[in-house]
Amino acid sequence: VPLSARSLTSAGVLLELIRTGRANTRSELANVTGLARTTVAQRLVTLFAHNFVIEAGGVPSTGGRPPAFLAFNSRVGVILAADLGATRARLAVSDLAGAPLAERTLEVDLRQGPAPVLERVEAAFRDLLEQVGRGAADVRGVGIGVPAPIALDRGAPIAPPLMPGWNRFPIQAWFQERHDAPVLVDNDVNVLALGEHRTYWRNVENLLYVKVDAGIGCGIVAGGQIHRGENGGAGDIGHIRLAGHEEIQCPCGNVGCLEAVAGGPAIAARLTRAGVEASTTQDVVQLALAGDRQAVHEIRATGRHLAEVLAFCVTCFNPSAIIIGGDVAAAHEQLLAGMREMIFKRSLPGSAAELRVVRGRLGDRAGVIGAALMVAEVVLTPESIDQAVEREPARLQSA
Amino acid sequence: VPLSARSLTSAGVLLELIRTGRANTRSELANVTGLARTTVAQRLVTLFAHNFVIEAGGVPSTGGRPPAFLAFNSRVGVILAADLGATRARLAVSDLAGAPLAERTLEVDLRQGPAPVLERVEAAFRDLLEQVGRGAADVRGVGIGVPAPIALDRGAPIAPPLMPGWNRFPIQAWFQERHDAPVLVDNDVNVLALGEHRTYWRNVENLLYVKVDAGIGCGIVAGGQIHRGENGGAGDIGHIRLAGHEEIQCPCGNVGCLEAVAGGPAIAARLTRAGVEASTTQDVVQLALAGDRQAVHEIRATGRHLAEVLAFCVTCFNPSAIIIGGDVAAAHEQLLAGMREMIFKRSLPGSAAELRVVRGRLGDRAGVIGAALMVAEVVLTPESIDQAVEREPARLQSA
Repeated sequence: VPLSARSLTSAGVLLELIRTGRANTRSELANVTGLARTTVAQRLVTLFAHNFVIEAGGVPSTGGRPPAFLAFNSRVGVILAADLGATRARLAVSDLAGAPLAERTLEVDLRQGPAPVLERVEAAFRDLLEQVGRGAADVRGVGIGVPAPIALDRGAPIAPPLMPGWNRFPIQAWFQERHDAPVLVDNDVNVLALGEHRTYWRNVENLLYVKVDAGIGCGIVAGGQIHRGENGGAGDIGHIRLAGHEEIQCPCGNVGCLEAVAGGPAIAARLTRAGVEASTTQDVVQLALAGDRQAVHEIRATGRHLAEVLAFCVTCFNPSAIIIGGDVAAAHEQLLAGMREMIFKRSLPGSAAELRVVRGRLGDRAGVIGAALMVAEVVLTPESIDQAVEREPARLQSA
Repeated sequence: VPLSARSLTSAGVLLELIRTGRANTRSELANVTGLARTTVAQRLVTLFAHNFVIEAGGVPSTGGRPPAFLAFNSRVGVILAADLGATRARLAVSDLAGAPLAERTLEVDLRQGPAPVLERVEAAFRDLLEQVGRGAADVRGVGIGVPAPIALDRGAPIAPPLMPGWNRFPIQAWFQERHDAPVLVDNDVNVLALGEHRTYWRNVENLLYVKVDAGIGCGIVAGGQIHRGENGGAGDIGHIRLAGHEEIQCPCGNVGCLEAVAGGPAIAARLTRAGVEASTTQDVVQLALAGDRQAVHEIRATGRHLAEVLAFCVTCFNPSAIIIGGDVAAAHEQLLAGMREMIFKRSLPGSAAELRVVRGRLGDRAGVIGAALMVAEVVLTPESIDQAVEREPARLQSA
């Protein structure tokens, strides 16, 4: 029972039935809802007037005129989505089903602070909107993924190690001032996990998405939904303590944290000490891609460190799959090979029996696709649709 | 949208609206469902005929006769619930809201194997039924918690270390042969977690219930639901490796497992080596309750070991609360004191900021109450109610 909807059979609920394929004709809608045909017809008038529903040809019938097939019009509006990385932002204008209509990559440096970065993102959003022939009124939501812990109620990073200058900056409010639509901001690993789950892993209920980059973090899908925990901190595995590395101080205040031992900058520092010049995660990636023996060795070690922590997560959480992403993970197959072996060795046989440990299939598009889907799922709830229908006079634009 | 119900406004859905207090008069039901008054009345006739609904006086009104207040009749049937422990079984006959009508505790020894133990449980169920004046036809479901990993599809323990002789024994089928009602079997920590959550912690979405006894395990509530993981293995924290204890072999095949270091038998063995005679978890508990210095010292150490693993779980899962239960936990306050300190020291400040670490409030009744609630939630789904209504002619028994 969707407690959020105005009624169990509101216009928003009817749209959900149509959108999810549970009822696609007037008579199916009447059967599933128990409503009278005339009531179904009234609610469809509203949904048609707002362009949420279109008639899409007929369905096979045993004779006579086929009943009209009702479909969700995912082009009734668009979503602006961005996945901000330390050095690169992926942007998209997507339809309301989360499918990108136009995409762009920007080179950015998050250390410049919020204003210059977000201005460039916003300018690129305007370009992309123009490119697909849409305007401000078409924007139904904005979704942003950032590599930082996020206070979900305010959409602001909290003490983000990779984003000095962004602490408590209200990213949500910043976009809200510029768009008359819901704005959602979340940790990058959560949107990455959502993107992969909704695209390729819908048939499993529980998975972990692990990003291995300058930072190390994990997005959790539990029971088909993103698990954020009590204050958005779930999956922060970069700060789990690795045994035997207590001499390494982590900026978080603890010692021996996974991220301080195995994140990109930590690898770069070890390479430099070993005589191989490297200062950033990108340097490490370039060296590994070029086959540098020392860099590959370090990435293999990172795989083992990760696996020690992930074995713990597997025993705790018993997921169906672990999806690996991030630049360091992409740099060399050795990471995954080392991880797989150690995870299976350390986990309980039962909990790892059918576990799959694989690379993400969406690559570095997972975040921007996930950010759009995060917004789509919120703006298409029956409650949101009911509110949209009540708030505005019907938009009689052509679909 | 409850995909499981026959329709969005079936009799089963109406019962859910009534039961959860969302609609308790005929006109509220019509408003919430969008159904015509006559349709609401038809479905209520069915629910009344099956005794699922009763009229319970009037509600305040501004004048005239008050509309009849509709209430769920939780006494329409009963649930048989049992929480099997290594040496003690707690049993109850509960109403359909999960409230115990009669309870009993049996001394058992699970090592005797399934047949003798389950026969005694079944005999006690029959006694309890008689005690509350109910018969076989009143039993709407059976719920059993056992201290073992469970294959949920078959309700059978899988390689249970504390229950030799029970491996793959079909507990579910055993009770199913004796009762014409759904039988659910689950790991004890899951029913413990459910019992505490539904009774005292409904306002939080995420909690861990940690049982510290002969075995150590953890029940997880994520997003308000029990998180079992891909094959029921979630929360098996007794088999997470403690750093620095690699010399201790665990029966599971790994080394240094939390349970092998800090479970009841491990403590007893260390006490014996230190010259204090102890062979079982109960011995340890008795010694600690009597204030034996060595036993209290060991229990404090157990608290620290647990905390090391739980700090990891807190960082991973970011729960609102950790509830501690089990005999070892009950034996001495030192366990909790040591745990709290270490969990907060080791966890990320953000994820532990508002964490509560407390004893379970239901004590050793949590399991049997949780087992009843687990069954209640399944037999009262709209789908189950709709099936019950269709399957049988109306039971016109008095409520």
